[in-house]
Amino acid sequence: MKKVIQPVKGTRDFYPDEMALRTWLYAQIRDVSESYGYQEYEGPFLESIYLYAAKSGEALVKEQAFVFPDRGGNQITLRPELTPSLARMIAQKQNQLVFPLRWWSFGPFWRYERPQKGRTREFFQWNADLMGVDLPEADAELVSVCASLFEKISLKPDEVKILVNDRRLMEKEISALQIPSERRIDVFHLIDRKEKLSISEWEKYVFDQGFNRKQLEGLQELVANKKLYQKSDDLMRFFEAVASLGCEDYVVYDPSIIRGLDYYTGIVFEAKDIDKEGRAILGGGHYANLVADVGGEPLPGVGFAMGDVVLLLVLEKYGKLPNLDCMPASVLVTVFDEGSLSRSYALAASLRGAGFNVVCYPQATKLAKQLKFADKMGCKFAIIQGPDELQENSVIVKNLKEREQITVKRDQLTSELRSFLAEV
Amino acid sequence: MKKVIQPVKGTRDFYPDEMALRTWLYAQIRDVSESYGYQEYEGPFLESIYLYAAKSGEALVKEQAFVFPDRGGNQITLRPELTPSLARMIAQKQNQLVFPLRWWSFGPFWRYERPQKGRTREFFQWNADLMGVDLPEADAELVSVCASLFEKISLKPDEVKILVNDRRLMEKEISALQIPSERRIDVFHLIDRKEKLSISEWEKYVFDQGFNRKQLEGLQELVANKKLYQKSDDLMRFFEAVASLGCEDYVVYDPSIIRGLDYYTGIVFEAKDIDKEGRAILGGGHYANLVADVGGEPLPGVGFAMGDVVLLLVLEKYGKLPNLDCMPASVLVTVFDEGSLSRSYALAASLRGAGFNVVCYPQATKLAKQLKFADKMGCKFAIIQGPDELQENSVIVKNLKEREQITVKRDQLTSELRSFLAEV
Repeated sequence: MKKVIQPVKGTRDFYPDEMALRTWLYAQIRDVSESYGYQEYEGPFLESIYLYAAKSGEALVKEQAFVFPDRGGNQITLRPELTPSLARMIAQKQNQLVFPLRWWSFGPFWRYERPQKGRTREFFQWNADLMGVDLPEADAELVSVCASLFEKISLKPDEVKILVNDRRLMEKEISALQIPSERRIDVFHLIDRKEKLSISEWEKYVFDQGFNRKQLEGLQELVANKKLYQKSDDLMRFFEAVASLGCEDYVVYDPSIIRGLDYYTGIVFEAKDIDKEGRAILGGGHYANLVADVGGEPLPGVGFAMGDVVLLLVLEKYGKLPNLDCMPASVLVTVFDEGSLSRSYALAASLRGAGFNVVCYPQATKLAKQLKFADKMGCKFAIIQGPDELQENSVIVKNLKEREQITVKRDQLTSELRSFLAEV
Repeated sequence: MKKVIQPVKGTRDFYPDEMALRTWLYAQIRDVSESYGYQEYEGPFLESIYLYAAKSGEALVKEQAFVFPDRGGNQITLRPELTPSLARMIAQKQNQLVFPLRWWSFGPFWRYERPQKGRTREFFQWNADLMGVDLPEADAELVSVCASLFEKISLKPDEVKILVNDRRLMEKEISALQIPSERRIDVFHLIDRKEKLSISEWEKYVFDQGFNRKQLEGLQELVANKKLYQKSDDLMRFFEAVASLGCEDYVVYDPSIIRGLDYYTGIVFEAKDIDKEGRAILGGGHYANLVADVGGEPLPGVGFAMGDVVLLLVLEKYGKLPNLDCMPASVLVTVFDEGSLSRSYALAASLRGAGFNVVCYPQATKLAKQLKFADKMGCKFAIIQGPDELQENSVIVKNLKEREQITVKRDQLTSELRSFLAEV
């Protein structure tokens, strides 16, 4: 037997049922994003390596991005995230765009990671950003957008939570542990990795980084302090806005949240399955300098990204995957015999003209085979026109589920079919 | 002044107005594809180089594809076309899928070509295929799908035409010119290039390929013979089916149509602006062996691909680009003063809960500035709640276009707003 050529590791094939799910998710994301007045945009999928040089998490580009020279010798990157492209697009038209600006997007990204549960090398991400406002209320709006998606796709506050922290608060607290500011980013990475390591592994990692026992204990106390937010005016305002937006059930303070990307400068958040199983569903935060970093004028913003892979796993876990029909046509027009294919085509075309989605069996074959096909594909009705019906200018409409059939005059088919379809 | 980091040559940024156009096109394509019962699917964007080794036009992969080694040393290709991925996906599940199978897709592709009018390095393509039928009527259905899109987006038969030929007919005619069958593909390339060269360039090219004057004249006569299709039973049946499907005004026989891809084995077609300006809008044809070539069982099919770039140029040329609103929220909730941001957020949230798309100005600033923002963004109504309104439990609804405003009781806002929006 010949061997079928294999797909690339970490990519996915979207057969119609899988594609219907992605299309459904995209539609939910669109509805939620648009309900907050966010405008859809999209960056290119290829970007120059220079775009990522400044600010993405180091590992993201240096270790995980697909980077390659094109035929002209330029270093091309398959985008591992969208925010740098957003910053570039804003910088390019900063004088023409209207601020505050709210944009969202849903598209593909690539990271060369080891494929495992919840992680593929090619994946889709929802991104939403609000730019031109530097208030904790803006951050709260983005968190509310996330919560609205969860609500829309039936993930409840006792299934998923959005965990929030503020890097500026953490910076102050870290300074209070006699840790110099130039080591702040290292501490952020330490905190970010805490959940991924065992206690002893983490302690070893902290000491290896040159911190002492007192600092270790200080950090442990810090990330366990669930009331820490009360020290931060911004977080207090943030939680008030979250309550006004009506999504407080989804949102929780968590001092261990830091997020991996180096460009966040204020409030950060991520959503997780409440059992803290698996990777984060989404992550985001406030950034002060991204647009300036790529050549524009300084402009603050807040945004998040949500991958499709983890979300779909969470939906599956909680039994919330939708039941989707991936056959768009409810009606099959059958072909009675060799000579009648053109007539069936014409009948199908006239039904399409009347607004129905119609599939025509594309060749003459046994009627039973055509009806079996209609059944397998999930059509609701089949239309049959044999010599008798043709003579009487009528057709048979067969309800495939009820196994009933009635004869309908050709000039009444459109209205009859409309009422049949309204009933199923 | 700092320089903004540049996008990669041949890529496009989709700002909201450009994205609205792409989303509109995708929706039209979806409607038309689904009206014929085609199911949406999608392949990965990365594929192995081996997938393309066998059958794509040689130039497409060897000269135009982005090919690069990943971090594991595998040769990865940014897909230059979808049909090989389709064949692979079919081959993988050939025993589980239901045939005849109708699939469509809309996604990104990459080719390293010189960017110019109608040609980018990163572009989007609509693909549709019908597999498992080996009849000219199946080919006609695909052509009809194309014509239905043109009709839907208001491109008339006196603006665009779908030109059709049959490679088997051409093979016979080429043999009659004493050209051996092993040189057939060279002749196809000659015919395919005829329109791109001047008469003298083309003649030189034919002689350079080793053909004689008699053969040259034979080829010239062949590609000028508009009645040639009458020699082909398949083409006669094809045109009968096209008439049954009601799209005959869009479809024309053209003996010079060959298409560049080597895998076509029967009827081929392409759509062009009627002035024959610019590149083809779409191209497709019948293929006998693609699934077997990637390791599956033999399965015939017919399909086409339409790029977004040329189509949008043609729409622009004929003044058919749609007028799209790229602001999804019709309503702006204003913020009266510093202390009322939370109240405005809550009002916006309650309107969203009632099904409205609502943007809330995200900070307290002068009302005039907020209203100007609403105007610029294309909102229809602004909602204002000052201390007086708050005391009376009412809000002001301002019609931004008519510059009128009325005061509405808070508990009647939802119904009033619904009727206001129905009027504009």
